[in-house]
Amino acid sequence: MKNRLYFDVSRNDTATKKELFEKIKDEKNTIGYYNLPDQDISSLLAYAASFDDDIEYIVVLGIGGSSLGAKAIYEFLKPRNGNKRKLVFFESTDPVSISYIIAQIDISKSHFLVISKSGTTIETIAVFKYIYSLQSDPGYYTFITDKDSPLEKFARGINAKVFHIPSNVGGRFSALSAVGLLPLALCGIDIKALLSGAGQIKESFFHDGYIRDILLDKALFYAKHHAVYHINCIFAYSETLKYFCEWYVQLWGESLGKKQRHSSFNVGLTPVGLIGPKDQHSFLQLLMEGTRDKSATFIKIEDFKDPLIIPDISLQHLESLDVINNIEFHKLINMQCDATFEALKIQEGIPLDEISIQAVDEHSIGELVYYYELLTSLVGRLIDVDTYDQPSVELGKTILKDKLEKLKGL
Amino acid sequence: MKNRLYFDVSRNDTATKKELFEKIKDEKNTIGYYNLPDQDISSLLAYAASFDDDIEYIVVLGIGGSSLGAKAIYEFLKPRNGNKRKLVFFESTDPVSISYIIAQIDISKSHFLVISKSGTTIETIAVFKYIYSLQSDPGYYTFITDKDSPLEKFARGINAKVFHIPSNVGGRFSALSAVGLLPLALCGIDIKALLSGAGQIKESFFHDGYIRDILLDKALFYAKHHAVYHINCIFAYSETLKYFCEWYVQLWGESLGKKQRHSSFNVGLTPVGLIGPKDQHSFLQLLMEGTRDKSATFIKIEDFKDPLIIPDISLQHLESLDVINNIEFHKLINMQCDATFEALKIQEGIPLDEISIQAVDEHSIGELVYYYELLTSLVGRLIDVDTYDQPSVELGKTILKDKLEKLKGL
Repeated sequence: MKNRLYFDVSRNDTATKKELFEKIKDEKNTIGYYNLPDQDISSLLAYAASFDDDIEYIVVLGIGGSSLGAKAIYEFLKPRNGNKRKLVFFESTDPVSISYIIAQIDISKSHFLVISKSGTTIETIAVFKYIYSLQSDPGYYTFITDKDSPLEKFARGINAKVFHIPSNVGGRFSALSAVGLLPLALCGIDIKALLSGAGQIKESFFHDGYIRDILLDKALFYAKHHAVYHINCIFAYSETLKYFCEWYVQLWGESLGKKQRHSSFNVGLTPVGLIGPKDQHSFLQLLMEGTRDKSATFIKIEDFKDPLIIPDISLQHLESLDVINNIEFHKLINMQCDATFEALKIQEGIPLDEISIQAVDEHSIGELVYYYELLTSLVGRLIDVDTYDQPSVELGKTILKDKLEKLKGL
Repeated sequence: MKNRLYFDVSRNDTATKKELFEKIKDEKNTIGYYNLPDQDISSLLAYAASFDDDIEYIVVLGIGGSSLGAKAIYEFLKPRNGNKRKLVFFESTDPVSISYIIAQIDISKSHFLVISKSGTTIETIAVFKYIYSLQSDPGYYTFITDKDSPLEKFARGINAKVFHIPSNVGGRFSALSAVGLLPLALCGIDIKALLSGAGQIKESFFHDGYIRDILLDKALFYAKHHAVYHINCIFAYSETLKYFCEWYVQLWGESLGKKQRHSSFNVGLTPVGLIGPKDQHSFLQLLMEGTRDKSATFIKIEDFKDPLIIPDISLQHLESLDVINNIEFHKLINMQCDATFEALKIQEGIPLDEISIQAVDEHSIGELVYYYELLTSLVGRLIDVDTYDQPSVELGKTILKDKLEKLKGL
């Protein structure tokens, strides 16, 4: 992975950077996600290996942090994943969507992963109750939850298998815990390579590699200018990164949209996920000519390892487009990325940087996940929010509970 | 469709509203999309009816305005669409994605719709050249493009069928032209009902129905406060509206992100599409506690017409969740919507409104499409931009062309 910054970081002084780095090094002792690349995955691998070949669907019942990470990584690798098992997600209480997904799978050839950190997520338990009414054999279920949660207790009661989410790993930072790793391993994804990618960024950041300075500089720039550039776009040039963008939206929005710790001021950085070249025909106009409140990070894949080529066909009346003949698609898409980047570079007031990852593989996406987790932690520290809580989502839950109890006449 | 505004519109005076309405009435004489609900669709229907039953895949080659509208409507209705034909989209030059889609379809059972307003869209022609190299029989292709475009001339040359996009209908406003209607009709969508939904909003707006005042009030509020509330979220409570959100992002972002006509000031309203309840576990925290620069429009479906119910199962240790037992999922999701709405209403500085559509059907999505097109036109007028152009996307294209010519040694 490479990352090049095109905004001015020359005024970031060394002392501030050192101080920030020390704070994050401290956080590493209490916040769990930092050390996930080093975890022992042998029990996960052994469990995955024990599955029968005739399980065709791995079905995740989870929402938010319990689904977005696995989905981001799975969808990135899916076109390259030869495994015949499909990963399917129930992430909603929408009955139309639930009925539709049920019609797509064969329950007798499915295994269900019920994932909830608290163990009491209403959407997840609602869908679980429904599936459980169709199939009550505990062998069809694995539970991933906090140690001693009500869900774990229930699972133990029916003698089902349970994996834990480390208590100091938050939902949106749990992609590289069992929450993400188990569904991925069950679908043939090389989770060792995934962690080694993440581990490489960890190593590089904490042991003075190339990424430390870049990340510190980027975070300092984002934080210093957060009142101006408070919309942070990812512009990823591959369809495969679509769900990575959704994961990023949760990570960034839910971590950084807060009241400041030492004031009651509402701050926040708004994440936007874009996919190229598609969004050249959509959001780009706004980025180019709209209000100067947006930064953009271009992500490109260096080597798609796909030989697909635009054939040497000249179409009558469309001869002006012969210029793309005989060019590999992977070359074209990266040229589109570069051209859009250059067009934006000419504008003033749009901070840009570019990340390139090596390939559509586990190692590369592992790097990207860990990179964004680190960046989120760094920016959260600087804008003085508690990066790891989400106090405001509780209020809606309380109101819902009241409504439900009222409906029941309780 | 109902729409209720929860922000203060009391200071919108009648004269301003009347003036705005008159301007839009004038625009209706030159801007084509306004009148699409009244178009004659008999030739489209006859053409769709002429297709053999053994065509299993309708494959759109298009990007941006040439794909987002059909995709939004198709994906909304898909879970309810009994038609066995599938609608598939090539929207990228990403080789991994192209290869993956090709592996999913059977070319011999496919019909390809090549859609490009200008007729020279590089992504679309690149993919077309590739598909054409695999299957050069013109009977496999239908072209949708501007009259006399290079693509039409090519199509005529190979004796293929062509439909036109009216020249005064812009790409992102073309969902209800042949661009959207033909692929939808070919997959069994009732395009008459779709247009009748759109027509109902048209009628209500232009002939003094209930929606006129609401739309004028909403547009005036958005415009008046656009420098403060410049991020406009849709929070739609149904998985089926996911691609509607993507369509909205293009419509809103590309139409309103501009230099003002009578100044060179960069303005713009940033669209964000959210899906509930999923994004309660993601973006909601930012909406609740982040910077007060966001409005939110909740969209709910009044009647999902789905009997799915949460079974009356009490799970040991999870008895606190028995409160959801025996409740229909459609009731639960709408209660979640209401609870989130109420939680946001308690906050200060978040302008809210609520749209409810009747059902997961053609009429309802037709209303929603036309409603958002009108709102975009109204706001564009008020913030003094040219709603219908997209000048800034040209620069990247020019740079790309230079790169391609350089690569070819031209």
